[in-house]
Amino acid sequence: MAKKEKELGKLRIISLGGLNEVGKNITVIEYGNDIIIVDCGLGFPDEEMLGIDLVIPDITYLEKNQDRIRGLLLTHGHEDHIGAIPYILRTINPPIYGTKLTLGILRNKLAEHRLPAQPKLNVVSAGDVVKLGALSAEFIRVNHSIADACCLAIRTPLGTLVHTGDFKLDISPIDGEMMDLTRLGEIGREGVLLLMCESTNAERHGFTPSERKVGESLEYIFTRNADKRLVIATFSSNVHRVQQIIDASANHGRKVAITGRSMLNVVGAAVELGYMKVPSGVLIDIADIRRYKPEELTIITTGSQGEPMSALYRMAWGEHDKVTLGRQDLVVLSSSAIPGNEKLVGRVINELSKNGVSVLHDSVVEVHVSGHACQEELKLMQALTKPKYFMPIHGEFRHLAANRELALYMGIEDRNIFISDIGRVLEIDQHGARFNGTVPSGKVLVDGYGVGDVGNIVLRDRRHLSQDGLIVIVATVDIEEGMILSGPDIISRGFVYVRESEELMEQARKLALDALTDCMDTGVIDRMEIKSKVKDDLSKFLYTKTKRKPMILPVIMNV
Amino acid sequence: MAKKEKELGKLRIISLGGLNEVGKNITVIEYGNDIIIVDCGLGFPDEEMLGIDLVIPDITYLEKNQDRIRGLLLTHGHEDHIGAIPYILRTINPPIYGTKLTLGILRNKLAEHRLPAQPKLNVVSAGDVVKLGALSAEFIRVNHSIADACCLAIRTPLGTLVHTGDFKLDISPIDGEMMDLTRLGEIGREGVLLLMCESTNAERHGFTPSERKVGESLEYIFTRNADKRLVIATFSSNVHRVQQIIDASANHGRKVAITGRSMLNVVGAAVELGYMKVPSGVLIDIADIRRYKPEELTIITTGSQGEPMSALYRMAWGEHDKVTLGRQDLVVLSSSAIPGNEKLVGRVINELSKNGVSVLHDSVVEVHVSGHACQEELKLMQALTKPKYFMPIHGEFRHLAANRELALYMGIEDRNIFISDIGRVLEIDQHGARFNGTVPSGKVLVDGYGVGDVGNIVLRDRRHLSQDGLIVIVATVDIEEGMILSGPDIISRGFVYVRESEELMEQARKLALDALTDCMDTGVIDRMEIKSKVKDDLSKFLYTKTKRKPMILPVIMNV
Repeated sequence: MAKKEKELGKLRIISLGGLNEVGKNITVIEYGNDIIIVDCGLGFPDEEMLGIDLVIPDITYLEKNQDRIRGLLLTHGHEDHIGAIPYILRTINPPIYGTKLTLGILRNKLAEHRLPAQPKLNVVSAGDVVKLGALSAEFIRVNHSIADACCLAIRTPLGTLVHTGDFKLDISPIDGEMMDLTRLGEIGREGVLLLMCESTNAERHGFTPSERKVGESLEYIFTRNADKRLVIATFSSNVHRVQQIIDASANHGRKVAITGRSMLNVVGAAVELGYMKVPSGVLIDIADIRRYKPEELTIITTGSQGEPMSALYRMAWGEHDKVTLGRQDLVVLSSSAIPGNEKLVGRVINELSKNGVSVLHDSVVEVHVSGHACQEELKLMQALTKPKYFMPIHGEFRHLAANRELALYMGIEDRNIFISDIGRVLEIDQHGARFNGTVPSGKVLVDGYGVGDVGNIVLRDRRHLSQDGLIVIVATVDIEEGMILSGPDIISRGFVYVRESEELMEQARKLALDALTDCMDTGVIDRMEIKSKVKDDLSKFLYTKTKRKPMILPVIMNV
Repeated sequence: MAKKEKELGKLRIISLGGLNEVGKNITVIEYGNDIIIVDCGLGFPDEEMLGIDLVIPDITYLEKNQDRIRGLLLTHGHEDHIGAIPYILRTINPPIYGTKLTLGILRNKLAEHRLPAQPKLNVVSAGDVVKLGALSAEFIRVNHSIADACCLAIRTPLGTLVHTGDFKLDISPIDGEMMDLTRLGEIGREGVLLLMCESTNAERHGFTPSERKVGESLEYIFTRNADKRLVIATFSSNVHRVQQIIDASANHGRKVAITGRSMLNVVGAAVELGYMKVPSGVLIDIADIRRYKPEELTIITTGSQGEPMSALYRMAWGEHDKVTLGRQDLVVLSSSAIPGNEKLVGRVINELSKNGVSVLHDSVVEVHVSGHACQEELKLMQALTKPKYFMPIHGEFRHLAANRELALYMGIEDRNIFISDIGRVLEIDQHGARFNGTVPSGKVLVDGYGVGDVGNIVLRDRRHLSQDGLIVIVATVDIEEGMILSGPDIISRGFVYVRESEELMEQARKLALDALTDCMDTGVIDRMEIKSKVKDDLSKFLYTKTKRKPMILPVIMNV
C-alpha cells in the first residue's frame, strides 16, 4: 500500500494565468519531479492600469522550480498564448515545443528582444508525441483563427489530461485540415482523467460558423463593389482570412497591397513557411498603388481594433503616407471588436464616414467569424473526451461559469467540476481530485523598460493624478529660527486652468501661508507635522470650493 | 420682391449638440426675431476626459440672444434631452414646455440644484400646439423607452419642420398609446419642409421589437425560475419596463421591493402622475425582504450599466446593506450596455457569477428591446412626412451617414440632405437651403462644482500625469551668490515604486544637482533657464533608463 502510493504520486494543475480574465494564458502541470508548461501569453492592461503597456504572468513559482521544468508546449501562435515568452526567458529557459507556424511567429517575436540566451525551439507536427520526464504530450489538430493550432493530450501516470488550447470545429476549413475529432474520440475511449477546456464562447448558443462563410461574404462584397477600391482590415495572424481576401482579389482581377508592420511580418512568414499561397503577380508594393485604378486594387491592412497609429487608423485620419481614402473606397472591418475596444473601433468608423468612405463591419454583413467554440462544440469536446474531471479555462469568470453549466448538462457531476483561480492548485491522486493550496502568482505589469516596477501604489497615484490633478506647495523655512525664508509658492497641474482661477489659487496660497506661519509661531519643528497641517488645510479648502480632491504635495525645504 | 423677401425671412437651424456624438442633444431653430430650443441634454465624458463628471453644451449663442428665445420644448425626459437644463438656467431662463411625465422628472432634477430663479414649466399633452412668436410647435405622440414622449411639428412662415426627438414605432405599446402615424401622415400631406430625424439605430435592419416582447421573456423567466429570488436591473426611466416587471411579479404571487435612488424617485413620480399602476399590497419596503422567502420576491434595482456604487454593483460586491446575493438568486439585466460600458457590465456579471449567482442578459434571452427606430421605422418616418429637406440628427457620424443612406434609398435627392456639425448653421429661405456660417459652440466640461474651468490644457496634464506620473525636483538657491542652499530634493508620484528604484532616484537627484551646480558655476541667473536645464537633463536620463516620460516639475526657490 505504502509502496503503491509512492509509485502513483500526485498530479498538480496550476493556472498562472487564463482564469477570470482575458489573455496571459499559462498552465503548469506537474507530477513528481517533472513540470510542463502549456502556453505563456501576455494580456493587455485594463482601463485602471494607467500607463501600462502589457501584463505578463508572475512566474516566481517556475523560477524556483526551474530544474524540474521539462518543456514549454505551445498550442498556437496568438499573443495571449506566446506573448510573455520573451519576458520569462530573462530568468528561465525551458525547451519549447510547437508547430511550424507557431514557432515561426515566436522566432520573429524573439528577434525583437535582446535575450540573455536563445531558447531551444523544437518543431512538432499534429500527431507527434513529445516525451517529457514521466509525462508525455501528444499534439492534436484543432481549428482556430490562426493556422496550425493544436490541443494537447498529456499522458500522466494517473491518466490522460486533455488541454484544448483555443479551438473551434471548422467542418470546411480553408487549409483542409479539420480538427481531429477521431483522435480525440480514441483518447476519450481510452479514458480521460481531466479535460481543461477553453470557455471564451461558452455563453453563445449553437456552432461557430466556418471560416469559409467569410469567403462567401467577401465574394458578395467584391461583386457588389466592383467599382470601388477595397480596403480590408483584419487580424494579421488570421492567415486563412488573409488567404481568402487574396483569393477573392485574384478571382476579381485585383492586385493586393499590404500595409501595417505586423501584417507584412505575418504574411511574409506564412508564405515562407508554406501556410499561404499567393498567385504570382497579385501582390504589389503599397508604394505602387498609384499605378492602378481604385477598382483594380485591394489593400489589406492592420488596425481592425481601431488601434491608434495602426495603418487603418492613420488612413482614417489622413496620416498614412501611401494611402489616402475617399469616396472611391470601401473599408471592410473583417473582425469584431475585442471587449473594451468598441469605442476605439467606433471612432475609426466615424472618422471614415466623415470623409465619405463607405464602411462595412460585422454587425451589417457576416465578414467575421469567431475562432472559438460555441456551446455545441464545447459539448462535443466533452462528448468525445468523456472526462472524469472537468476544469473550464481561458475566460472571464462568467465564461467559466457558463462552461460549467454545459458540463453539468453533459452529465459531469458537480463535485467533479473545478473552477480554479490563478495560483490555486488542483491536486489529483488515486483517491480523487481537490483544491489544495496555492503558489505565488499574479500580474506583472510592463511599463516601458520596466517589468514589475509599477505596482498598486504607483497605479493608485496615477489614478489620483488623472482624476483631479496636482497641487505642489513649496516653502523654504529656517525651522530653528521659526522663519519662512521663501514662499510658499503654489503650482498646479491638471487641477484648474490657472489663468481663470487666479483668485482661487491666491486664496489657497494665503491659506498655506497661514498654516505655515501658525506652525512657525507655535514652534512646530517636525517637518512631517508641518506638511500634514498644510496639506489638511488646503485639502479641506479646495474640496469645499471645487468638490475636487487634487493630490497635494507640500515640500518644506529647511535651510 | 424686396417686400416679399422681407416678409419671408430666413430660417436657421443650429445643433449645439447631438451631432457626431452621444448625448447632449440640443437644437436651435430661429426665424426673424424668434428662437426656439428643442431639448437640452447632457453627455457623459469619454475616456480621454479624465476626472470629468458631465459634459454640457456651450450655450454662448443662446446667452447672447436670450431676449429672442420664446421657449424650450422637451421631447421626453431622458438625461441626454433634459439633463443640461439645471446648468443653462444659471444664465438663461426660457419658458419650458413638455408633457406631464417629462416635466415631472425635470422638476425632481431641478430640486437637486440651487438655482437663481425657478423656470416656468408649461405642461402640454400630445396634440397640443404651442404658439411661440412667429413659430408654433405641435406635440405628436411617439413611442420610446420612456413614457410620454413626443416628436414636434414646428410651423414656420417658410413651411413645417418635423423634429423626431427619439422614437420608435411600438404597435402594441404597454400604455396603449401608439405613435401617431396618422397625424404625421396628415402633416406630411400638407407638406414638410425639413425632417430632422434621429439616427441611433440607422445601422440596424428591420423593425425594433415591441416593448411587449420583453414581457413575454419575463413571463418565461418567471415561470422557469419559480424557486429563485429574482433581481431585475433596468433603466429607472423605463416606466413601462418597470410596470411589466411589477405585473409579472403580481401575476406570479411575488412581492416587489425597489432599491436604488433613481429607481425609487422615478417609480414614485410615475405612480403619482398616473403613469404606473401598482396593484395594492405588491410593493414592499426593501428593509422587509427578510420576511419573505426568495421565491416570493422580486427586487427591481438600478445598476444595469454596471455603474460603480449603483445598487446592483453594491449587491455584487456584498456592500448592499439590505440585499445579500447568493445561489438562490437570479439576476436579470433587462438592458443592453451603452457603448463604452461593456467592460463595466462585464465586471458585474463576473462578480455575480463568482458568488454563485445566476445571471441572464440580453445576449442570452430577449430581456431588452431598444427604444430607437431601426431602418424600416426610419424609412416609415420619411414615407409619412415626405420632407423636401432631410437632416439626420442624434448620433455619431457613422449613424448620421447611415441615416443619409436611408434617405437616398427613399428618393430624397443628395443635395437636399444635410449632415450638419455642432454649431453649423443650416439656412433655409424661399430660394433653397444651404449651410451658411457657424455660431460659437462646443463642449463645456463639468468637474465637481466647476463648470467650464477644466479645458484642454488641464486635460492634457491629467493625461500626462496618468500615463507616467510625476517627478518634482526642488532646490533652494541663492542665485546672486551662486549657491545651492538646500536640495535638490526629488519626489515622485505614479512613476516608479521608489523603494525598489532607490538607485535610479539617487542617480536622478545627482544629475539634477550637477545641472544646478553647472548653472551656478556658469553664472546662469534666469530661473526659467535653470529650470529648463534641470528638466531637460532629467527627462533625457529617465527616458533612456525607463522608456517613460513622467511630468517633471522643477521648483527653484531663491532666497
